[in-house]
Amino acid sequence: MSKNVFFKRKGPFSVGKIFKELKLYQKTKIFDIKALEDAEISDLTFLESVNYINLAKTTKATYCLTTEKLKTFLPNNCRPIIVKNVLFELCKVARQFYPDADIDTPDSSLKKPEKSKYSRVKFGNNVFIGRNCKIGNNTIIGSNSIIEHNVKIGNNCTIGSQVVLKNSIIGNNVVIQDGCKIGLKGFGFIPMKEKNLRFPHIGNVLLNDHVEVGANCTIDRGSIGNTVIGKNTFLDNQVHMAHNVKIGNNCMIAGQVGFAGSSLIGDNVSIGGQAGISGHLKIGNNVKIGGGSGVVKDIPDGTVVMGYPAVPLKEFLRNQKK
Amino acid sequence: MSKNVFFKRKGPFSVGKIFKELKLYQKTKIFDIKALEDAEISDLTFLESVNYINLAKTTKATYCLTTEKLKTFLPNNCRPIIVKNVLFELCKVARQFYPDADIDTPDSSLKKPEKSKYSRVKFGNNVFIGRNCKIGNNTIIGSNSIIEHNVKIGNNCTIGSQVVLKNSIIGNNVVIQDGCKIGLKGFGFIPMKEKNLRFPHIGNVLLNDHVEVGANCTIDRGSIGNTVIGKNTFLDNQVHMAHNVKIGNNCMIAGQVGFAGSSLIGDNVSIGGQAGISGHLKIGNNVKIGGGSGVVKDIPDGTVVMGYPAVPLKEFLRNQKK
Amino acid sequence: MSKNVFFKRKGPFSVGKIFKELKLYQKTKIFDIKALEDAEISDLTFLESVNYINLAKTTKATYCLTTEKLKTFLPNNCRPIIVKNVLFELCKVARQFYPDADIDTPDSSLKKPEKSKYSRVKFGNNVFIGRNCKIGNNTIIGSNSIIEHNVKIGNNCTIGSQVVLKNSIIGNNVVIQDGCKIGLKGFGFIPMKEKNLRFPHIGNVLLNDHVEVGANCTIDRGSIGNTVIGKNTFLDNQVHMAHNVKIGNNCMIAGQVGFAGSSLIGDNVSIGGQAGISGHLKIGNNVKIGGGSGVVKDIPDGTVVMGYPAVPLKEFLRNQKK
Repeated sequence: MSKNVFFKRKGPFSVGKIFKELKLYQKTKIFDIKALEDAEISDLTFLESVNYINLAKTTKATYCLTTEKLKTFLPNNCRPIIVKNVLFELCKVARQFYPDADIDTPDSSLKKPEKSKYSRVKFGNNVFIGRNCKIGNNTIIGSNSIIEHNVKIGNNCTIGSQVVLKNSIIGNNVVIQDGCKIGLKGFGFIPMKEKNLRFPHIGNVLLNDHVEVGANCTIDRGSIGNTVIGKNTFLDNQVHMAHNVKIGNNCMIAGQVGFAGSSLIGDNVSIGGQAGISGHLKIGNNVKIGGGSGVVKDIPDGTVVMGYPAVPLKEFLRNQKK
Repeated sequence: MSKNVFFKRKGPFSVGKIFKELKLYQKTKIFDIKALEDAEISDLTFLESVNYINLAKTTKATYCLTTEKLKTFLPNNCRPIIVKNVLFELCKVARQFYPDADIDTPDSSLKKPEKSKYSRVKFGNNVFIGRNCKIGNNTIIGSNSIIEHNVKIGNNCTIGSQVVLKNSIIGNNVVIQDGCKIGLKGFGFIPMKEKNLRFPHIGNVLLNDHVEVGANCTIDRGSIGNTVIGKNTFLDNQVHMAHNVKIGNNCMIAGQVGFAGSSLIGDNVSIGGQAGISGHLKIGNNVKIGGGSGVVKDIPDGTVVMGYPAVPLKEFLRNQKK
Repeated sequence: MSKNVFFKRKGPFSVGKIFKELKLYQKTKIFDIKALEDAEISDLTFLESVNYINLAKTTKATYCLTTEKLKTFLPNNCRPIIVKNVLFELCKVARQFYPDADIDTPDSSLKKPEKSKYSRVKFGNNVFIGRNCKIGNNTIIGSNSIIEHNVKIGNNCTIGSQVVLKNSIIGNNVVIQDGCKIGLKGFGFIPMKEKNLRFPHIGNVLLNDHVEVGANCTIDRGSIGNTVIGKNTFLDNQVHMAHNVKIGNNCMIAGQVGFAGSSLIGDNVSIGGQAGISGHLKIGNNVKIGGGSGVVKDIPDGTVVMGYPAVPLKEFLRNQKK
């Protein structure tokens, strides 16, 4: 997706104008802000942690917000813009490009669906749809649900009642149960006395084919970049997925599990009820995480973990015996 | 309830036809699939674990899906059908009888309630009711709530706003607060690459007299058999009850507690906030479970437990001192 | 707030009539029931725990429900009414004054908003508003949301879709995301066989300026006294705040955190995802509580804690190494 269909973008702005305080005086135009792996030559990207230096090496961006320490990991095509607090500066820049993406203003284009436009969709009562939505054949939308502008839903999906979908792209054969709130902005802001500075959330939620999401789940959209659930992954009720979390294919996520921001979960992962996954972690493929566990570090492929903090199962059982 | 009013049942089918691959060639007709304790002479039942051998001894079913090992626990009137994976085979059979019970298709019979039919019920704004519902006198249903077909609600109940009730039978004087989703299908499926095989959920949710359910709770209906809350049991907000959980009378379940599938909770049990109860456990009467505990094994009557995993309180306190 | 705008109050009643069984024979009229710090000369208050003896010293109430042991902490102007179980007696008295505050009967005054009355408010589709609400300029209310009678909302607020607001007073620039249920009665009752005795909830929810509440949160109103969130405090999704919890200014509360009743949280507190705070605790200013922690005792200012039960971080890390 090279173009953001969900938000109006301002700009382009010259580098000099964006970073007035840094006195860069450069006239090169920046068109958009994107993650390292998504950025094009005309975009600004950012590198705030060593976790992402592999992605940095191949970025196509011409400019990158980063620190003195991290700038060495950028390729030659990418010029560093050195700042002390990458996320704070990124937040300010993103707010220039996307001034409307920091608060979820309810969609003012919502209307009852026109039958002519959605002739092969089955709607319950009192459904509201925003402008430019696309909904596939044989998809059902339950009563009192709200589909905000530009959302795409594939074929043969079952969307329950009292659901809110915004800033989302949904595959085929997806099931979303009642009461889910999907695509809302995440919990991202720069804490400031009197008035926190909200981080714009210009990313989407992508649910791939055959995904199922249980009742009353919340799945926040990405801030920059997307929140993603892979094919045939099932979520139970009351799961919370924060912004930019990516879950692979064929995973089973039990009830009330919580994911903090930006964690990456592999394929064939099963997570027991009420487990919590901290932010910015990498959970491998074929991992099993016991119910109630608190995961605070990366987990390699094929590992079974349990506990708070979660450790390999054998270690957990050994500790229990002490 | 000998008849399932919520789902259309196919069949009857002959044993031979149901289990073509097993080459049983038997012409006896099977009319329904039921749990060991509920099955009649014309039904198929199943025994997948030693936990249920007591129930097996008195089952009235003529046929039982089970394993080579477990077949010895069946009474003489009940003929075993031996398979390797009981739940997988059960899932396939249940899908033959109930092809529509594996996904919660929103009820297409929903309408605004006819005043003549529900003259002694008070409705808020924009309430939708399915066909064949029964709602008792002096019951109140809050705005934007949805009561799907065949649901029964007793007298003097207070159902909040933005509630979804389906496949449920509700007693008298029951309180359900805003945002609850009750009677949806549970998180049951056979994991399969590319496309999981969903387990049909043909059971109900039964809420007995004087039950209270807090805001934004989710209570899934049973797969085969019911999910039940006993008299005068109160649930706080954001509690999750998975399929087939049964809670006794006079229990207090604090906020954000989660129950995995099929656990049985006794009477007078109190459970502190955010505690989790694993699946298929038996929690006795007069048990107290501390907030945040993770219960992973059965708890005998009268025990006070705490911790993750939960242990008797004395043991927990002793471990803390180490 | 000297007058309760949300509930009709009965009375005044004479002390003798209220406590018939105690045979006090006093004719002094009691006009209302209030917390120690809120009570006026004509009110009844209550002191049930040594935690509140500092508040007791300066109460203006003429009468106080308390125990033989605690009566010595009352000032001269306040006459003790000695009982065995303060909360049980308080519950009975409160039910005399406020017979309608123990169950959340959906508001029967809800209507579509009149444009003339709310000319500077933007409403989504199918919003319902009760009588006597006040909503500030430039505030937006999302579709299918319900604002019950007497609720006040300030200027420039963004209320999402499918929200319920009752018994609440909301400041300026407040953001409430989709699916929140705010101001409902809490989980307070005297457990009794057959039929629990519900505690009236006559308090409110107060959200101060610049507060943000994530999706599908539940914030219960106070029983006697209020539930409060201070300025510029942000809550992530699926947080549960029980009755009478008070959170200070500039706090960050991550996803799925739960607060049991009556805890007091200071300013600049950050709480990680899924942490739980037990009831009646005092958490100081500038405290950091790690994700998944279970807090069971008071925490002094400036402390970093983690674990279940939560202990200072150094102690937690030391225990991990054993």
